[in-house]
Amino acid sequence: MKNLSRRNFVKNVSLATAATATFSTADAKNIKDIFVHHVYFWLKNPNSEADKSKLLEGLEKLSKVPTIRMVHIGSPASTNRSVIERGYAVSWLCFFDNLEEEEIYQKHPIHLKFVEDYSYLWEKVIVYDAIGPKR
Amino acid sequence: MKNLSRRNFVKNVSLATAATATFSTADAKNIKDIFVHHVYFWLKNPNSEADKSKLLEGLEKLSKVPTIRMVHIGSPASTNRSVIERGYAVSWLCFFDNLEEEEIYQKHPIHLKFVEDYSYLWEKVIVYDAIGPKR
Repeated sequence: MKNLSRRNFVKNVSLATAATATFSTADAKNIKDIFVHHVYFWLKNPNSEADKSKLLEGLEKLSKVPTIRMVHIGSPASTNRSVIERGYAVSWLCFFDNLEEEEIYQKHPIHLKFVEDYSYLWEKVIVYDAIGPKR
Repeated sequence: MKNLSRRNFVKNVSLATAATATFSTADAKNIKDIFVHHVYFWLKNPNSEADKSKLLEGLEKLSKVPTIRMVHIGSPASTNRSVIERGYAVSWLCFFDNLEEEEIYQKHPIHLKFVEDYSYLWEKVIVYDAIGPKR
């Protein structure tokens, strides 16, 4: 069952992210005080659907690391302007409550096993770690 | 008031994102069927706190585009490994329900005004648009 009712959706969001993330009262959709970890993977065999599927399999396992509050696994969209980077195969976006929780993720056995089992697939990764700036 | 109660948090998440995004029942924190738009800005004057503040001001205005479901405005975290890109000044992460909603955002008067008023600040932008792959 893919599409959930609004009630279940809200329940699942609360399960996923409610712990310590906070929203501005001025703008409910503007999330602050989270740690955003975004990784882009370039495959050694960029045209291999099998290799891409294998990496996606690994990331599904990786998403079980308990300090991950939210995860999105993606591929380049169809948008195509000069400023858009489309060479990567897979995008891995995670939210953590803070730096400490992200460091737990980095050292977690599930993460170490993911690197061990799947790193042969990628040629390059670029990581962007962002936190809400003090304003 | 920065920190909200769990009740208000859940309410605000539902306001922000409940419309059509869906979660996997197998893994509540694994979001699918959203459009992830992540932009990284490099400033012309990378050491200018004034220019960075100006850009943040512009992004706060930009966050009012109604098709944005969730937004996070950030700067590089303190993490520092070889694979981590830290040269950008500001990270702008948005969730949309789908490609069409992102296209509305691209053409929205608030977005056009943002580019008109603030693009003098940046030297380079890199955009990553990702959608959940069919699996």
